[in-house]
Amino acid sequence: MKPPAWGLPLLKTQVVELDLKTLYAPVKNDLADVEANFKSLADFWKRDFPDLHDMLRHILMGGKILRPALTFMSGRCIDGKTGRILDMATANELMHIATLVHDDAIDRADTRRGRVTVNKLWGTEKAILLGDFLFARAGEFAASTDNLRVTKLFSQTLGIIAIGELRQARDLYSPAQNMEGYLQRIAGKTAALLKMSAESGAILAGGTEDQVQILTGYGYNLGLAFQIVDDILDFIGTEKELGKPVGSDLRQGTVTLPALILMERQPKSNPVAQFLAGKDREKNIGLAIEQIKSGGIIEECYLEAEKYSEKAIELLAGLPESTCREALKALAVYLVRRRN
Amino acid sequence: MKPPAWGLPLLKTQVVELDLKTLYAPVKNDLADVEANFKSLADFWKRDFPDLHDMLRHILMGGKILRPALTFMSGRCIDGKTGRILDMATANELMHIATLVHDDAIDRADTRRGRVTVNKLWGTEKAILLGDFLFARAGEFAASTDNLRVTKLFSQTLGIIAIGELRQARDLYSPAQNMEGYLQRIAGKTAALLKMSAESGAILAGGTEDQVQILTGYGYNLGLAFQIVDDILDFIGTEKELGKPVGSDLRQGTVTLPALILMERQPKSNPVAQFLAGKDREKNIGLAIEQIKSGGIIEECYLEAEKYSEKAIELLAGLPESTCREALKALAVYLVRRRN
Repeated sequence: MKPPAWGLPLLKTQVVELDLKTLYAPVKNDLADVEANFKSLADFWKRDFPDLHDMLRHILMGGKILRPALTFMSGRCIDGKTGRILDMATANELMHIATLVHDDAIDRADTRRGRVTVNKLWGTEKAILLGDFLFARAGEFAASTDNLRVTKLFSQTLGIIAIGELRQARDLYSPAQNMEGYLQRIAGKTAALLKMSAESGAILAGGTEDQVQILTGYGYNLGLAFQIVDDILDFIGTEKELGKPVGSDLRQGTVTLPALILMERQPKSNPVAQFLAGKDREKNIGLAIEQIKSGGIIEECYLEAEKYSEKAIELLAGLPESTCREALKALAVYLVRRRN
Repeated sequence: MKPPAWGLPLLKTQVVELDLKTLYAPVKNDLADVEANFKSLADFWKRDFPDLHDMLRHILMGGKILRPALTFMSGRCIDGKTGRILDMATANELMHIATLVHDDAIDRADTRRGRVTVNKLWGTEKAILLGDFLFARAGEFAASTDNLRVTKLFSQTLGIIAIGELRQARDLYSPAQNMEGYLQRIAGKTAALLKMSAESGAILAGGTEDQVQILTGYGYNLGLAFQIVDDILDFIGTEKELGKPVGSDLRQGTVTLPALILMERQPKSNPVAQFLAGKDREKNIGLAIEQIKSGGIIEECYLEAEKYSEKAIELLAGLPESTCREALKALAVYLVRRRN
C-alpha cells in the first residue's frame, strides 16, 4: 500500500509492509486462543440449537479482532503475564460484535465489509436477540476475570457506547452540528471500547495506576483517530474497498468530520446542508462527495486523526521498552494509513 | 377479586384482599428506594440529553416492580440486612424493563398494558439502543454490589433470557411443539429472571448455601407458575384487562400451554394447527379461543401453574418464620389468582 500523495507526518512514516498480520505477531498465540473461545461458543449450540450455532459461526469468525489484540498488547507492555486477560479480550470483541449486529439491524444494512448481515439473513428480530445474547456472553467473560474493576468498566463502557449511538440517532439529518458534538459522539461509539480494551489489559496484567492511565489514554486517543479515519475512508474509499456505497454515512443522515468541515467552510450554502434539508438528495450527495474530496478537506481530517494518533504514541513513552510497546506504536500508525 | 368458579387448591385459598400493595408492605420502603434510583437515572440526563430523559421517565415509572420486591423479600427472609441488596434489586428490574423494550420492538407492539411502547413513540432504532443502554445500567448496578457471584449470575441470566427468546422466535408458527419445549422456553424467558431475583437477594443477605438454594428454587418455580398464568390470561382475560387483543400470543405465532393442550387433545385436526398452517386465520383463531375456554383446558393449565406455585411455597418451609417468608407465600398465591 502506497501512502497518499500529500505528506502528513504519520502518513509518510517509513514503515515497510505494515499489515495486521505482522502487527499482531507478538500476540499471535493469544489471538488464536480468542478464536478458540469463539469456536467453542458457537459449537456449544451445534446439537441443541443449530440455528444459533449457524448465526454465531457467521458472526464470530473472520473479523479483524483489533480489540483483543489491543487488550493483549497492553497487558504484555506491563509484565507479560496474560493468563487472566484472555477472558477480557474475548469479552471486548464480543461486545464489539454485539454492537455491530444491533447497528446493522438499526440501519437495515444488507452487508458489512462485503459479508451479508445477520438481519438480512435471519431477520431484524433475531438480530436484536442475537445481539442481546452476545452482550450477555461478553458480560460473562468479563465477570469470569474475577476482577470487579474490569467488570464494572465493562458495563460502564456498554452504557457509554449506547449513549453515543443514541446521540448519533438523535443528530440524524440535523443541520445543527459542530466539532464538539462530533467528538462526543465518536468518543462514545468508538473510542470508549478501544480505551476499555487497552485499559482492561493493563489492569489485568497488574499495572501500576500510572501505567493503567497511560494505556487508557493511548486507547482513547487511538479510538478517536480510528473513527476519524473510518469517516474519511467512507468518502475516499471505493465501493469495492468499503463494501458499501461511497458516502454511506451521509446518505443515512450522519454528519461526520469531512461533511462537518464542508458545512463550516461554506456556512451560507453547501450540498451537505441541502442534502440534510431533503433538497435534491441524489445531486447534493454527489456534490458533497466531490467537494469533500477536492477541497483539501480530507487533508484537514487526516491532520485531525494524526493529532490523536500522535498523542497516543507519545503517551507510550511512559512505558518500559518492549516488543508490545513497539507494536502498539506501529498499530497507531497503521490505523491512520490503512485503506479499509 | 373473586376466585374463578372451579375450585383448585390455590385458587380457593382463603386469602382476603390479596393485592400487590398489601403484599409489598414488608418491603415498602425498599421499593421506594428502587423508584428513587430510577428517578435519579432519568433525571441525570434532563439537561444534557432531554430525549433520553423522556424515554427513561416513560419506561421506568409506574411498573409493578415485582422483581425488586422478590429480591428484597428473599433477602429479608434471611436476616433483614438489606444494604447491598438495593443495587441488585434495581439491576433486576432494569434487566426486565430492557427485555420488554426489545420485545416490543421485535413484536412491533403499539401498546403494553395500555401504555404506548417506546418503539411506537420513538421508533424501533431508538428502542433497540435504549434497551442496550438499560442492559448496561443494569450491569453497572449488579457490579456495584461488589459481589462477583451475583455479577456473574446477572450475565448468565441475561444469556438464558436471550436464548429463551431466540427459541421462541425459532418456534414461531411451528406445528412441532411439545410440553418439554414449552417449559424450556418459559424457563428461559421468564423463570430465569425471577429465579435470579430471589437468588441474588439471598446471596447478598449472606444466606447459607441451603438458604440460597431454597430461594433459588422458590424463584424458579414461581417464575414458571407466573408465565403459565400469563399464558392463561392471554386467552381468558378481556381486551380491556389485557391491554391487547385476546389470544395475542397465538395471533403472533407463539404456541403457549392452552394452545398446546388443545393441539394434543385433537392431534388429527384442530384450529391451532390450522391457524399455524395459515389456513383461514381469522376463523381459526376464534375457534381456538372458543375451544380453549370451553373444554376444561384452562382448568388443566391452572393445575399446572398451581403445581409450580405449590412447589415454591413448600420450599419455603425450609426457612425460619418471618414476615417476608409469609409475604413470599402470599405472593405465590397471588400470582396464580391475579387477573392481570
